[in-house]
Amino acid sequence: MKLNSILSFFAPKDAVFISLLKDTAVVLVDAATLLERLFSTEDDDEQSKKLCALIKVEEVKGDKNTGKIFKALNKVFITPFDREDIHALADGMDDVIDAINRSSQKVLLYAPKMLPEYTLQLSSIVKQGAEEVQKAINELTAMRRNDQSIRIHCKEIKRLEEAADVVYEEGIISLFHGELGAVEIIKLKEIIQELEKSMNKINSVGKVLKVIIVKYA
Amino acid sequence: MKLNSILSFFAPKDAVFISLLKDTAVVLVDAATLLERLFSTEDDDEQSKKLCALIKVEEVKGDKNTGKIFKALNKVFITPFDREDIHALADGMDDVIDAINRSSQKVLLYAPKMLPEYTLQLSSIVKQGAEEVQKAINELTAMRRNDQSIRIHCKEIKRLEEAADVVYEEGIISLFHGELGAVEIIKLKEIIQELEKSMNKINSVGKVLKVIIVKYA
Amino acid sequence: MKLNSILSFFAPKDAVFISLLKDTAVVLVDAATLLERLFSTEDDDEQSKKLCALIKVEEVKGDKNTGKIFKALNKVFITPFDREDIHALADGMDDVIDAINRSSQKVLLYAPKMLPEYTLQLSSIVKQGAEEVQKAINELTAMRRNDQSIRIHCKEIKRLEEAADVVYEEGIISLFHGELGAVEIIKLKEIIQELEKSMNKINSVGKVLKVIIVKYA
Repeated sequence: MKLNSILSFFAPKDAVFISLLKDTAVVLVDAATLLERLFSTEDDDEQSKKLCALIKVEEVKGDKNTGKIFKALNKVFITPFDREDIHALADGMDDVIDAINRSSQKVLLYAPKMLPEYTLQLSSIVKQGAEEVQKAINELTAMRRNDQSIRIHCKEIKRLEEAADVVYEEGIISLFHGELGAVEIIKLKEIIQELEKSMNKINSVGKVLKVIIVKYA
Repeated sequence: MKLNSILSFFAPKDAVFISLLKDTAVVLVDAATLLERLFSTEDDDEQSKKLCALIKVEEVKGDKNTGKIFKALNKVFITPFDREDIHALADGMDDVIDAINRSSQKVLLYAPKMLPEYTLQLSSIVKQGAEEVQKAINELTAMRRNDQSIRIHCKEIKRLEEAADVVYEEGIISLFHGELGAVEIIKLKEIIQELEKSMNKINSVGKVLKVIIVKYA
Repeated sequence: MKLNSILSFFAPKDAVFISLLKDTAVVLVDAATLLERLFSTEDDDEQSKKLCALIKVEEVKGDKNTGKIFKALNKVFITPFDREDIHALADGMDDVIDAINRSSQKVLLYAPKMLPEYTLQLSSIVKQGAEEVQKAINELTAMRRNDQSIRIHCKEIKRLEEAADVVYEEGIISLFHGELGAVEIIKLKEIIQELEKSMNKINSVGKVLKVIIVKYA
């Protein structure tokens, strides 16, 4: 029998944490959806600024929520294993939201002449990844019943991460083999790298979810 | 009653850790002060080299001190919560010192033709942030009494981090909209990013301090 | 007497972990050896692609092995101190392998016109560092007996990291003072930085090893 499962996610006091994690997942999906819209917005500076401002609002919301989770973790007695996992999930989602915010800030600050198709593709993969994270988080409430389903979301996240890698690589190659000047290359390289980092951070959340499934379900 | 407060920072054996953390805070402020001087030093290569060498000396001192703290943490029995927090403070200050060292190394290695005003402004904010960290660390000895005061330092760190963000953003915009060639842009972008990272790392220390206040004070 | 030494690395169940850590160390050395070959391969695109693909294979192997270690850590009861150290070693070696993989991917994607001598030197230092890590890991089985020997490997890692720093600095200076265009500078800077990161990550593993020696030996 597993030692950890005694004080597992099923205890009533853990409901608080799952509820807070769900709140963060909503922020994550909202930020990722705005990011995809930002990369779909062509040549409309006003609209781009608005979207970046909205993403920043989500980032602040995410920060506050993570703060709430950490405070709550310090108030209840909880096994170190549970503490560690909830902490890792909250921290992980926060990292994704931060990377999404940095991606959008870089679009605003660097103001590249155009956003190539592969940046839109990457942002779209990030959005799909965020949605998979949310679905998995929503199923933590009844983790043992949803065991298989959470595993499927984790696999999908892994698949999306590999898809992002392919687009990223094609993007970098086309960036350096095109007609662009060095300054445009600098700008777009930073933006693509930040988008790829966003997806990497989603993948890290996926790995945490997989570990949790192995431990408790 | 909070479980953690039984073996709180007030125990005599913890005095050792606070003393070691104070040592690291001195190194941090010294390094940050040298960094600000480096960015104020105009067109004096010899002086710049000296300042970078002095910062490197601080970085080595910081490393040794962090090593001492980790060794000491392994020798005494201490609650995991305390361990974690002391570790995070030591590690966090070490990260700031490393980022300060990297900032100065990049000035030396990249040798940009000039250091724009906003790089000096950023280094100055980093120095102020380091001083706030030191003040907060110095007040850990009587944490419950200094509760409010530590909170004020944390707020000031947060404010400085937001101020650094504004300067950073203006810096990046002016960098890409100026007359500079691509190579100068590459150099200055690296330097500004490292300065911003230094301030981010200070902010991370601020967050750890806030968590500690919530837990023990 | 040290509390931790009761359930130290010498317990039979820990043999499993040392064996898994040894497996990861093999992957690490294999990846680093391929990396050195990649930087020695001149003007042979087909060969370079093959080597990058082989490094990617190692990276996947490393990931799987780290997954195994984390799963195994969750199945046995083990003191938090041991857990933490094994986790840090596995994670640390995984970080090195990831950085090696990214270094090779950047050679492939960025396809710089030539790889300067200092990139080969750096990759060679990374390989030597990986070998020192492996030697130290292999001696964990009889840690108390091998105490001094592991210390020597840690010192050698530290020395290699400092050697890499010198080559890195000379590389950056020659990069910016040469005849290269901005685009080539961007490409090579990314590659050198990733190589230096690989060595930094090896140094982090060295630090973990040193902490373990202090705690248990």
